[in-house]
Amino acid sequence: MQLKIALLGGDGIGPEVLAQSVKCLKAIEETFNHSFEYVEASVGAVAISNTGKPLPDATLKLCREADAILFGAIGSLEYDNNPDAQVRPEQGLLGLRKELGLFANIRPVKMFDSLIANSPLKEHIVRGTDLVIFRELTGGIYFGKKSISEDGTRASDVCEYTEDEIGRVTHLAFKAAKKRRKKLTLVDKANVLESSRLWRKTVSEIAKSYPDVELQTMFIDNAAVQMMMNPTQFDVILTDNMFGDILSDQGSVIIGSVGLLPSASIGRENAMFEPFHGSYPQAKGKNIANPVASILSTAMLLQHYGLNEEANAIVSAVNESFIKKVVTLDVLGSSKYGTDYVGDFISEHIVDPD
Amino acid sequence: MQLKIALLGGDGIGPEVLAQSVKCLKAIEETFNHSFEYVEASVGAVAISNTGKPLPDATLKLCREADAILFGAIGSLEYDNNPDAQVRPEQGLLGLRKELGLFANIRPVKMFDSLIANSPLKEHIVRGTDLVIFRELTGGIYFGKKSISEDGTRASDVCEYTEDEIGRVTHLAFKAAKKRRKKLTLVDKANVLESSRLWRKTVSEIAKSYPDVELQTMFIDNAAVQMMMNPTQFDVILTDNMFGDILSDQGSVIIGSVGLLPSASIGRENAMFEPFHGSYPQAKGKNIANPVASILSTAMLLQHYGLNEEANAIVSAVNESFIKKVVTLDVLGSSKYGTDYVGDFISEHIVDPD
Ligand SMILES: [Mg+2]
Ligand SMILES: [Mg+2]
Repeated sequence: MQLKIALLGGDGIGPEVLAQSVKCLKAIEETFNHSFEYVEASVGAVAISNTGKPLPDATLKLCREADAILFGAIGSLEYDNNPDAQVRPEQGLLGLRKELGLFANIRPVKMFDSLIANSPLKEHIVRGTDLVIFRELTGGIYFGKKSISEDGTRASDVCEYTEDEIGRVTHLAFKAAKKRRKKLTLVDKANVLESSRLWRKTVSEIAKSYPDVELQTMFIDNAAVQMMMNPTQFDVILTDNMFGDILSDQGSVIIGSVGLLPSASIGRENAMFEPFHGSYPQAKGKNIANPVASILSTAMLLQHYGLNEEANAIVSAVNESFIKKVVTLDVLGSSKYGTDYVGDFISEHIVDPD
Repeated sequence: MQLKIALLGGDGIGPEVLAQSVKCLKAIEETFNHSFEYVEASVGAVAISNTGKPLPDATLKLCREADAILFGAIGSLEYDNNPDAQVRPEQGLLGLRKELGLFANIRPVKMFDSLIANSPLKEHIVRGTDLVIFRELTGGIYFGKKSISEDGTRASDVCEYTEDEIGRVTHLAFKAAKKRRKKLTLVDKANVLESSRLWRKTVSEIAKSYPDVELQTMFIDNAAVQMMMNPTQFDVILTDNMFGDILSDQGSVIIGSVGLLPSASIGRENAMFEPFHGSYPQAKGKNIANPVASILSTAMLLQHYGLNEEANAIVSAVNESFIKKVVTLDVLGSSKYGTDYVGDFISEHIVDPD
């Protein structure tokens, strides 16, 4: 298969972990006889420095044309500490999601048995966790109208949803649930929020088309608790943009490292694959960042194009790295392996699994 | 001291746990020679059934006059399953907070060593947790303008904050931090939300008046993670209404039971004390609800009036109940003690500590 892949490293550890993913994709090309073209483009704080824009036009154009986008991470301390900056790195990621209509963010959270000691949760609670979060990604309060009064003493953000916005991600979530354990949990705050009540109404209506999937509803505050007390109860979680942000970050930590989890952002015509984690600017250039989340994102990319054998080759190689303890510091405090070495190990294991 | 205390049992297990708190307050009266007057009033789903209103006028009037309010819990399955209901039990609680201007919700989260086995978190992570959450309680998205389009396909909620709303709870939080470990963590989403950026600006400004308190900022998604990975890092957490709802529910579960934690809601002229937990309608009337959160709320009430010795008598009696394992099922799965028995044990221990 021929694929044109846009590489958006972004800020902090983004470029470093992305480089490991490219190693793995090259190993896949070699092993399975595919031909992938890689084109780099800038986004985030680095793009602001270079072009004044967090999402330069050239980057957006490339992303539209590409078959898939591999994204690193975004955000820098400089901006985190300067809440007044009008042009912000995060606008690069939000803009990309909005421009390409990447309305669904899919985040699998699966506990690897070999890493169970790393979870902050007790073993009997976390063992067997295998859930996937479907987060609506282009609506809600993160994209709603913002305003600040002229004298700067009053500020507001609007959380708005339409039936259509809710419907398209809901269908994806139900389809996934059908292929899994047939349970879907809608997380909202319908006892207080009007937008949540629209979610509940719309999702309940759509549920009738998926009679073999059980629909459950849960308030966000309780869901945040249940992720800690009983994560194995979940199969598919469906929720809005902000609640999904919180729950998926929680999901990443219960499996023992924020550095392990991939994600996919899906639109009607484009698909972007990126690690769960942020730009972790403190670790930039130190060769300590965990590349596994980014590498597993490439497995989601391959799966998206039906290359299941290839995706499995990546997952197997990652598993092997856990078993051989070729992991970064965040996974094993005594580890001496860096980002590069872990990327080499996994990519070599793809080419030569024995 | 003479105190007039309004008793608002509310829904579900609310009245049952409140009854145990009254036993304890009577024990305090007897032991320390005080005279408390108790006046009951209805609120929530039960008030809707009786009067059509979740917060009847008579209830509000009583609460205004009383020296303190002891609140049970609110919410029933009937309404949770009916998102379309226009009159809702939660409006009783939200209304009370708004009418009385209870702008700050204070939620201490302290790990009891004797209960550490109950935490879903590993012992080395949770041991020593001792934090207090200051949640803004009358602003933000829960109280913002709500709308739904005429055809019912578009819904929105507004999250709005003013400098004044942020300022008054911020001062309380800094004052508490000064008396504690002198660290305050502001939780927001300032990289995306305009309202969060106003929080950051306002709190940073106020911080200058408390130079001995260290101010730290954290995004809500990261804070939800840090509550699981490293809760001992926190001293005072300051945050908005919705983020505080999520974090304080998380806080309640890391210490091993949602049934253990009290809270206080403070306004300029009124103060209300209530357990952390909800109405748990499934347990109503079964004599299995944990009364400790409600009982510890009475300790916060006594403290509010400077009755520190009396408050300590309650905390000691609760501690004794843990040591003697006179606890409800949620704390110890093999326990045979019910709500009533635990309430009797604690109140008797107040009168006769040996
Ligand atoms: Mg996040
Ligand atoms: Mg709550």
